[in-house]
Amino acid sequence: MNNFTNKLYILTEHDDTYTQLIINQGLPDLEITQNPELAEIVLAAPPLITERLNEFKNLDWMQSTYAGINKLTQPNLRQDYTLTNVKGIFGPAIAEYVLGYTISHFRHFTHYHQQQQQRNWQPQLYTSLTDKTMVILGTGSIGSHLAKTAAAFGIHTIGVNRTGIPSKQETFKDSFHINELEAALKQADIVVNTLPSTDETYQLLNQTTLSYCSNVLLFNVGRGESIDNKALLLAIKNKWVEHAFLDVFECEPLTQEHPFWTLPQVTITPHIAALSEPRQVVEIFANNYQQWRDGFTLNNTIDFDKGY
Amino acid sequence: MNNFTNKLYILTEHDDTYTQLIINQGLPDLEITQNPELAEIVLAAPPLITERLNEFKNLDWMQSTYAGINKLTQPNLRQDYTLTNVKGIFGPAIAEYVLGYTISHFRHFTHYHQQQQQRNWQPQLYTSLTDKTMVILGTGSIGSHLAKTAAAFGIHTIGVNRTGIPSKQETFKDSFHINELEAALKQADIVVNTLPSTDETYQLLNQTTLSYCSNVLLFNVGRGESIDNKALLLAIKNKWVEHAFLDVFECEPLTQEHPFWTLPQVTITPHIAALSEPRQVVEIFANNYQQWRDGFTLNNTIDFDKGY
Repeated sequence: MNNFTNKLYILTEHDDTYTQLIINQGLPDLEITQNPELAEIVLAAPPLITERLNEFKNLDWMQSTYAGINKLTQPNLRQDYTLTNVKGIFGPAIAEYVLGYTISHFRHFTHYHQQQQQRNWQPQLYTSLTDKTMVILGTGSIGSHLAKTAAAFGIHTIGVNRTGIPSKQETFKDSFHINELEAALKQADIVVNTLPSTDETYQLLNQTTLSYCSNVLLFNVGRGESIDNKALLLAIKNKWVEHAFLDVFECEPLTQEHPFWTLPQVTITPHIAALSEPRQVVEIFANNYQQWRDGFTLNNTIDFDKGY
Repeated sequence: MNNFTNKLYILTEHDDTYTQLIINQGLPDLEITQNPELAEIVLAAPPLITERLNEFKNLDWMQSTYAGINKLTQPNLRQDYTLTNVKGIFGPAIAEYVLGYTISHFRHFTHYHQQQQQRNWQPQLYTSLTDKTMVILGTGSIGSHLAKTAAAFGIHTIGVNRTGIPSKQETFKDSFHINELEAALKQADIVVNTLPSTDETYQLLNQTTLSYCSNVLLFNVGRGESIDNKALLLAIKNKWVEHAFLDVFECEPLTQEHPFWTLPQVTITPHIAALSEPRQVVEIFANNYQQWRDGFTLNNTIDFDKGY
């Protein structure tokens, strides 16, 4: 330890993993400290760091391990440091989640798992994913990556957005304006919500819009606010929705009493469709550290006023 | 019913499904009969029809619902009819099976299923499929289709075959000769056997070759004969293999006493990685029926002498 090293404080849900990965990077003049007062750099999960911001007297740069940094851009909090987040790393994770569960459903993985417990050998017919139609709400980087991966399975993809204009890369087989949601949903075998939470998307999937669906698999990997949960229960009862895969909820963790937990037509996952993978976060951190050390502008810098 | 209709007899594991799908096709001058003696056309699963071949006095054409027609090409059986099989429809099904179970494993689907039973909200870290290496034994139509689909998830694919020559379409990122199996397996995160059963492939995955692996997911969607089961038990014990997904076995159904049933590191499925999907079989049948009715050559005709 000397006075010329840069001091990093780590505050995440997986400090041991991050510590090891950062040590493995062998970054020059970087030292991990346990003392908040000494740290010029912080690698942190926003919900954990927010309450402790004022402990970091020497803070110059914070790398968030999340994409979402809303908690840190609240106007009452200090903004006298550079904040960077992680971006563009969630498409593959979402594609794995959606396509993995889609295959698991159509290819009866749970059924075969149960059969194995009973030493039971009983083949069951299936329909493959080929020629199924997936409606993806949101045509940003996540929706586009999902569409491209789904196409490798012969799935037809329809993107729904605020313009109805096809993306330049022709990722989607077809594109619909949000006002044409009915026409899109009526063709769907699989519906995936990737939309952020805005006034426009609040309970976009409600009794009216869900009634356009017929026996669909419904994925919510966007925000809990986009689905009216009471309408979803009705949609399951009426078989508008055959199975719902829910990764996000208005209130997280989902409360113990919620009826979703015990419904066989609902799969609940604890907001893991796209976690920040420490390996990928540390790659972003390492690049930014080299920039910071050399006095250059950092990648993914947040504008506190704009909030993104 | 009149004398000018062509009579079809159906003998499969899913007669109701096939009957409905064929009725839906509305094929001209075709009638489904329950009387074997009247049938000129038979749509059948080879294991079911073999014993009853001689009941079909008027048999002219048989469409097999399987790719495998070995049972029907035995020299002691009649060969006075045209036999057609199904081909080229298994790549997508195998890709779904292998990638579905791969995602299910790396993204902890079983774990979250169990957590849901306990109303437990507990995220768990994962590594995505991006940059993992999949070694595919066999670079035919199934192996190639799998490689192309795996690439959509950012998986690096290595094809292993008898020539080591890359396929023309550059489907695989790299190609190895079967004699270089050691070099291939040492790079593997996922190993998939798609090879047919021949003298060369008999127990190709044995104690020596499995020891080249380290914590791999091992898939057998080729033939049971390609794996030495005792060596696989050792490989699991030594963590050469982290999890084995076995769809085919030397003796099917797998015997009740087999240790595989209860090993948590083994997933058993009853030879369903690529079933003949009735929908696809009926498409092939319908095309062939039009050809047959008009006196043209049928697709996928089997040469009884060659056996394929």
